[in-house]
Amino acid sequence: MKIVVQKYGGSSVATTEKIKEVAKKVIRKKEEGYHVVVIVSAMGKTTDELISLAKGITDHPVPREMDMLLTTGEQISIALLSMALNASGYSAVSFTGPQLNIQTTSIHQKARIKDIEASKLLRALEEDKIVVVAGFQGVTEDNEITTLGRGGSDTSAVALAAKLGASCEIYTDVDGIYTMDPRKLKRARKIEKINYEEMMEMASLGAGVMHYRAVELGHKYRIPIYVASTFSEEIGTIITNGGDASMEETLVTGMASSLDDIQITLLNLPSSTSSLYRLFGELGEQEVNVDMISQMLTEDHRMNVSFTISKTDLHVAEEIVEKWRQEDKSVQWEVNTDIAKISVVGLGMRSHSGVAAKVFELMANNHIEIKMVTTSEIIITWVIDQKDELKAIELIGKGFGLEMEE
Amino acid sequence: MKIVVQKYGGSSVATTEKIKEVAKKVIRKKEEGYHVVVIVSAMGKTTDELISLAKGITDHPVPREMDMLLTTGEQISIALLSMALNASGYSAVSFTGPQLNIQTTSIHQKARIKDIEASKLLRALEEDKIVVVAGFQGVTEDNEITTLGRGGSDTSAVALAAKLGASCEIYTDVDGIYTMDPRKLKRARKIEKINYEEMMEMASLGAGVMHYRAVELGHKYRIPIYVASTFSEEIGTIITNGGDASMEETLVTGMASSLDDIQITLLNLPSSTSSLYRLFGELGEQEVNVDMISQMLTEDHRMNVSFTISKTDLHVAEEIVEKWRQEDKSVQWEVNTDIAKISVVGLGMRSHSGVAAKVFELMANNHIEIKMVTTSEIIITWVIDQKDELKAIELIGKGFGLEMEE
Repeated sequence: MKIVVQKYGGSSVATTEKIKEVAKKVIRKKEEGYHVVVIVSAMGKTTDELISLAKGITDHPVPREMDMLLTTGEQISIALLSMALNASGYSAVSFTGPQLNIQTTSIHQKARIKDIEASKLLRALEEDKIVVVAGFQGVTEDNEITTLGRGGSDTSAVALAAKLGASCEIYTDVDGIYTMDPRKLKRARKIEKINYEEMMEMASLGAGVMHYRAVELGHKYRIPIYVASTFSEEIGTIITNGGDASMEETLVTGMASSLDDIQITLLNLPSSTSSLYRLFGELGEQEVNVDMISQMLTEDHRMNVSFTISKTDLHVAEEIVEKWRQEDKSVQWEVNTDIAKISVVGLGMRSHSGVAAKVFELMANNHIEIKMVTTSEIIITWVIDQKDELKAIELIGKGFGLEMEE
Repeated sequence: MKIVVQKYGGSSVATTEKIKEVAKKVIRKKEEGYHVVVIVSAMGKTTDELISLAKGITDHPVPREMDMLLTTGEQISIALLSMALNASGYSAVSFTGPQLNIQTTSIHQKARIKDIEASKLLRALEEDKIVVVAGFQGVTEDNEITTLGRGGSDTSAVALAAKLGASCEIYTDVDGIYTMDPRKLKRARKIEKINYEEMMEMASLGAGVMHYRAVELGHKYRIPIYVASTFSEEIGTIITNGGDASMEETLVTGMASSLDDIQITLLNLPSSTSSLYRLFGELGEQEVNVDMISQMLTEDHRMNVSFTISKTDLHVAEEIVEKWRQEDKSVQWEVNTDIAKISVVGLGMRSHSGVAAKVFELMANNHIEIKMVTTSEIIITWVIDQKDELKAIELIGKGFGLEMEE
């Protein structure tokens, strides 16, 4: 059976008119001879509206009941899309997560898919029906309704594709994965093919349409994921093994930039591993997610430590570092909120060195100060002044061929 | 276990503020020492909004997907009410119809409850939780989501009460059952106690808050149903075996009136049973619901037939009767759209005759023409001119003691 799993995001099904357009697109695929499974998200702002209803009741709704509430959003979408398909003369049937027994762990609001019972779905496909499935939701062993958290519908789609041995198409409001957010690099190039690992790094940087968990699942089960625009016929991006066609020569596949972080620096800490252990231990206990860390010993056997965290964690972190100063007056700390974090991602870095060096050169020649740097196998990240962000993006874009060809 | 089943209608949960008020009312019952099961309908206009979404897709949505769509309305309500109860410090848990395995027949949009698996619900009650259940919905053997049709949430409530051996309280926007719609008879009296059979007749006349099926179910399982206002402390009406406290002297318990019917009269039909068979057979095939029928032979061995149907079926019925005139030019037909249908209901009529005679007398003395009359065991119905409706209601109201005492 030639099966394709298509997923349409909330903006693609925001109105009944758009749902009818989506139905046409689904039908075209069906007419090409595929068995089609469609995953849909909640319509446009529905989830936000439901959240605001909950806020009208209490500021701290129980997570179980939030799942009960939010899963209605996708249920509305599947019913309407299935109606639209049936109204066009195609036999279609919709299923909620619980109906398909999309089994998840029992952590409400961030459950993870454990397994899917495909029998019911396959039976419907064998009857030549188009199957419409509610994304983002599942059910526990105890028949409790769960949701998968952010990016959940993408994860549903990839998991279903994996279970069915199908290919997976993610339709959204952008037409593919770009080397860089085109709002920041006007001439950013659309990537034809990107490797799972690169895409995971891009996703974890908050860039590039897809959510990390969905890409990770695609990687695990080797499901090619095609990302394209719902309402255009432009060729999108395929996430797969391998990588860009010209991968051999490509050092850097994509870039991401964020203004959501701040840098905290502690000077003259006691130079011992236990200091670091205590510092990051306390931050972790308060659920402050530390991103980059840089540490350096000073001549007088003290230690300077600099790290970045999300802006939203500033006050918690300040309380923790202030305690050091209270205990040891030689310790000083400072916060820099005007930073930009720029990352480049590329599988090519595994076999080719020199990316970091080239970026240092580009920055130095253009008087951009680098405040921090971390490297891992296929990603390098710099912290610079916020004012230099766009200039740095442009330099790296040109320097590593991330722009469209003239 | 002392269990009470409470049901709150759509207007009682129309806003988050009202849901919080309902939560307080539920908690008061819990504090009185009851285990409480709460059934809720969809919030205010939610069902209408969902129906209008479906209309945006197609004029003829498949019933299965309408059920998929509409059941989200009650699911939203149960989540919010459960949140409100939990936020007030009471342990509550919500369940959809499928989660509680409220088993129904498989006719979408008008399924009937077959059985309810009470184990899950009882377990939650034993854990001292308040259980919030989505009304109006159930699930088939094949795990298909169904709805119960009009009045479905009342039916859910009575069925659950029957299963749990609990009492049943229906909270709504009126404060009980009245002898007559107070909009038509200003001094209509609230009925303290009404018998199931009387209430079923009232309900099938479209009068009196409760839906026929729910009362029928209460009757079958002898579940007393208390009907009262959500947001007032006024004593409501109890529907039960027996009847009004003063039943022995009461001939007429309640009255209803409708302007939704029309009267069609056929003159000079061939006088044979096969004519009647054909006429009502054809109307039935076209799903025209015939209400009252009156038939009379003429001197020349022909027959006159008069019947009432709903206004909405006028055109279908006209086509059918016009065929008779085409076939047999002596047949004539006429439609009267300006009629009112007035019924009186009372168990007392079983043992006391004279109700019909007294009404004829009242009408004659006041020059109100009676165009048609039908009687059955506990109900008598008259058709009169629409212009006489309110006058007739007042005469009967006074004549049979249906008004409040001075």
